[in-house]
Amino acid sequence: MGKQRDILEKLAGAFQIQHVLLRQALAECLGTLILVMFGCGAVAQLVLSAGSHGTFLTINFAFGFAATLCILTSIFFSLLCGHLNPAVTFSMCLLGREPWRKFPLFFLCQTLGAFLGTAIVFGIYFGTQGELIVVGKNATAGIFATYPSRHLTLVNGFFNHIIGTAALIVCILAIVDPHNNPVPRGLEPFTVGFVVLVIGLSMGFNSGYAVNPARDLGPHIFTALAGWGSGNVKKIGHKANTFCFFVPICAPFLGAVVGVLIYQLMIGYHLEGEVQEKQKEMEERFKLSNMITNEDA
Amino acid sequence: MGKQRDILEKLAGAFQIQHVLLRQALAECLGTLILVMFGCGAVAQLVLSAGSHGTFLTINFAFGFAATLCILTSIFFSLLCGHLNPAVTFSMCLLGREPWRKFPLFFLCQTLGAFLGTAIVFGIYFGTQGELIVVGKNATAGIFATYPSRHLTLVNGFFNHIIGTAALIVCILAIVDPHNNPVPRGLEPFTVGFVVLVIGLSMGFNSGYAVNPARDLGPHIFTALAGWGSGNVKKIGHKANTFCFFVPICAPFLGAVVGVLIYQLMIGYHLEGEVQEKQKEMEERFKLSNMITNEDA
Amino acid sequence: MGKQRDILEKLAGAFQIQHVLLRQALAECLGTLILVMFGCGAVAQLVLSAGSHGTFLTINFAFGFAATLCILTSIFFSLLCGHLNPAVTFSMCLLGREPWRKFPLFFLCQTLGAFLGTAIVFGIYFGTQGELIVVGKNATAGIFATYPSRHLTLVNGFFNHIIGTAALIVCILAIVDPHNNPVPRGLEPFTVGFVVLVIGLSMGFNSGYAVNPARDLGPHIFTALAGWGSGNVKKIGHKANTFCFFVPICAPFLGAVVGVLIYQLMIGYHLEGEVQEKQKEMEERFKLSNMITNEDA
Amino acid sequence: MGKQRDILEKLAGAFQIQHVLLRQALAECLGTLILVMFGCGAVAQLVLSAGSHGTFLTINFAFGFAATLCILTSIFFSLLCGHLNPAVTFSMCLLGREPWRKFPLFFLCQTLGAFLGTAIVFGIYFGTQGELIVVGKNATAGIFATYPSRHLTLVNGFFNHIIGTAALIVCILAIVDPHNNPVPRGLEPFTVGFVVLVIGLSMGFNSGYAVNPARDLGPHIFTALAGWGSGNVKKIGHKANTFCFFVPICAPFLGAVVGVLIYQLMIGYHLEGEVQEKQKEMEERFKLSNMITNEDA
Repeated sequence: MGKQRDILEKLAGAFQIQHVLLRQALAECLGTLILVMFGCGAVAQLVLSAGSHGTFLTINFAFGFAATLCILTSIFFSLLCGHLNPAVTFSMCLLGREPWRKFPLFFLCQTLGAFLGTAIVFGIYFGTQGELIVVGKNATAGIFATYPSRHLTLVNGFFNHIIGTAALIVCILAIVDPHNNPVPRGLEPFTVGFVVLVIGLSMGFNSGYAVNPARDLGPHIFTALAGWGSGNVKKIGHKANTFCFFVPICAPFLGAVVGVLIYQLMIGYHLEGEVQEKQKEMEERFKLSNMITNEDA
Repeated sequence: MGKQRDILEKLAGAFQIQHVLLRQALAECLGTLILVMFGCGAVAQLVLSAGSHGTFLTINFAFGFAATLCILTSIFFSLLCGHLNPAVTFSMCLLGREPWRKFPLFFLCQTLGAFLGTAIVFGIYFGTQGELIVVGKNATAGIFATYPSRHLTLVNGFFNHIIGTAALIVCILAIVDPHNNPVPRGLEPFTVGFVVLVIGLSMGFNSGYAVNPARDLGPHIFTALAGWGSGNVKKIGHKANTFCFFVPICAPFLGAVVGVLIYQLMIGYHLEGEVQEKQKEMEERFKLSNMITNEDA
Repeated sequence: MGKQRDILEKLAGAFQIQHVLLRQALAECLGTLILVMFGCGAVAQLVLSAGSHGTFLTINFAFGFAATLCILTSIFFSLLCGHLNPAVTFSMCLLGREPWRKFPLFFLCQTLGAFLGTAIVFGIYFGTQGELIVVGKNATAGIFATYPSRHLTLVNGFFNHIIGTAALIVCILAIVDPHNNPVPRGLEPFTVGFVVLVIGLSMGFNSGYAVNPARDLGPHIFTALAGWGSGNVKKIGHKANTFCFFVPICAPFLGAVVGVLIYQLMIGYHLEGEVQEKQKEMEERFKLSNMITNEDA
Repeated sequence: MGKQRDILEKLAGAFQIQHVLLRQALAECLGTLILVMFGCGAVAQLVLSAGSHGTFLTINFAFGFAATLCILTSIFFSLLCGHLNPAVTFSMCLLGREPWRKFPLFFLCQTLGAFLGTAIVFGIYFGTQGELIVVGKNATAGIFATYPSRHLTLVNGFFNHIIGTAALIVCILAIVDPHNNPVPRGLEPFTVGFVVLVIGLSMGFNSGYAVNPARDLGPHIFTALAGWGSGNVKKIGHKANTFCFFVPICAPFLGAVVGVLIYQLMIGYHLEGEVQEKQKEMEERFKLSNMITNEDA
């Protein structure tokens, strides 16, 4: 036992990273990896088993509970971490709760995590011998990244992504609002998981509810590298091409702005006002009692 | 950063609403908007995807968890808010826990929220070009508002709504009873979500479990304005006409009265009695100990 | 407002029941009513909609979450109440945690509650005009009470019920064990709901997991009175006849004995031992420190 | 009552086990029994009802919530117990949180528990007269133990099990990390249940997600003894033979090593570093304040 403990302590010393931001970035990377691994794994299971081992509901459950688990894994630095979504990081920067320099770093790490998660799902279901499961390219590209349904126009899809992300941001802001705090401490990750689940249940039909630019960009890069390539995109046509690289990456940021505005105008500012009023009242009472005490003196 | 913070503070100052009741009304509006957006979105997803992206269970999950999320979003004023349902507001007024003047205001805001939520679902799935998805009017009107099944008579539907709302009210009263309080603080919204889920699982077949007059009136007004019109109602005939504008709007209030009576007669009064008895005991002990102290003195 | 408050207080005074046991019995009755109303309602919804508004999973969810809700409604007297199942009451009496005189009273009230719950489901789905939904007698009797699958022998069904109830009792004893207490206070009802859900998911195929004699006896009496009658039983033959009135009523009590034995032998006694050892240690330390203090003195 | 209490106390005294390790082993045995009974029961229900009483989702729910319940049943000795999986015990030993001598004992007891759980499922569904439900051997052997899908190669299956177990271990380590502790105390069993659920939802297609060697070895031994025998294995051929007795038993331990490495390198070591730095800071401040006090003196 003593020897084992020594080795473990030496290992711990050798691999500890001193830089706090780098630690957070690593956690973001692992978190997004877990999200994409479980989420896209569920899609792969549904598609490859031709429906016998999954339904659309199982995908929603997988993404929802995976969101919970990956926030739990990466949340540890006093709730400032565990975004796992560039749109969430963007909202936090907008509200001044995070410095702007975190945004590009987190975006990069989240995309890297999504890339690695995609690679793991590829490894599990396509194996070392890719020929084992012969599947059409079009059929399996949708496992990893999101593609629009046929009926969807560019404007429609754009609107869809904005609404989805705005709903996500409104709910997340309500859950983590420091003045509101309706959820018992420690249950925030579970509640965010429910938000992701519900968004999937009600807004997943049009284009696969990619309310997370990193979760979409990472798999897109991986499928391009792994051989699905841009040929795939060409086949669906120019519309889809523009859609794939424009809508799910850009629309969520616009949705984040809309979500922040709605929450702040309808709930956030008034809650802050409430808190400030109470503080003022307390201060005035304190002054008054001081004045009285002084007069008494 | 400093500049951003200044702008944010100015914005906060500009948009803060001073009136407490108005703040509550805004929160009710946003909450009901979220409920209807997620709930009706799930129905739309099921209907428009012809069952590939949803089942009746996904609708139940969506309404249940959406209820949780929208209560979480709007609950903040010391548990007095977050009704999101005129029948709940009505029950609270009946029991003397809320002043009656809140009832019409909340009813209006909840209906407005449901109207806006319907508009968002319409925007997501029907898009700017309404012709994109050509669907029959009759088929899609049921996405937003509730219509009775064919086998349902007026009396039957009325009884159905009364029972559903009574069950909802009994469970909610048990959950928020100040003398009972079986749920850990902060978990009430989740428990109410389970209530809504279970009501959908067991009473949703007859007429779509509209135990919430606002959730039904808002979409009804929207579909009438958006072009489904009263023609739709005429086609189903006079019975449905009466049903649509009478049963789901009025029956829940009667159900609320029944629910309040059942809970108070079987649980509530006895619980209050228990608490009062304990208080009396405490007071008598206190008196006794005082008497003894005085005698000692 | 003042007038309303007066009326409410007068009502409260008029209807308060003084007897504690009667209060508990009322709560048991309401709780079992809610359990059967939601649970059998889900079965009715599945059967009458011919599968469009339910699956076997929705029934499991309905019974599981209904168990949670009805425990929450009736749990209030310091965790000593909210059994809702004569087999649970029986186990508590066996372990000496409840007096035996509560058993017949609770059994009666739970059966009455199940009877009333069945009546409400009958009212919702069969309506005032029973002819509205013409359904075969055999097909709908199974909505309310449990009947064995065809492949089931008497011995097999008996064994099945014993195992199911034993599993329920082992899990419930683990959840409410005063020396163990692994579940945070207030979450017990939710955990018991999961137990009921899991039993349904894994043991519901043979004979409808009636691990609760009251939940089965109440609906049996109702269906007999409402017209399904004993003719129904005769048609399935003598085997089923014996089964219906013997297995789901008696087997759960035997299962409760088995469950109590397994839990106590494998976990309970050792846990008690652990606690007693710690207490002894504490006492000896206390003695020792007293002796030292005395010597010092 | 007095007599009953006496008998109960005598029984308690007679059956208490003094040895702590033996108590833990008994708890592990009962816990794994419950896991396999509920989990394999759900598979049996799906297979024997030909899909009418279950889907792949119900199996995932059953295993997930069963994991929660069996951890709750066996967790009691200050969180050091309730592994229910030799791979988890192995990880804890690797990290030096458990002594290595516990590993073989727990492995044995967990396998025994899985064996007994299988026997109970066999008893429920195959009954005392095994001929009652005549089912093909190949079709029902998969109820108890896991067999690979046809498309799976040995390397692929091996990789699959390693990834699954690694994901399980990373999530469990995050949940029980003493320096992280993101989950409110007492909710760990529920969170682990979600982990098992999500792994089933996203990695269950290839070979039935046997991330637990005991859960697979126990049923394998039972089915061999009960008559499915090794003939079954011969029919699927040598590949499956090697697979059955090699991959699901050995791969999880390798996966545990991978999971421990990933978690420690990406989260664990940095978290420990954080804590140590804070402690050093505290100590230095304490020294400084002492020095100042001394100088003052």
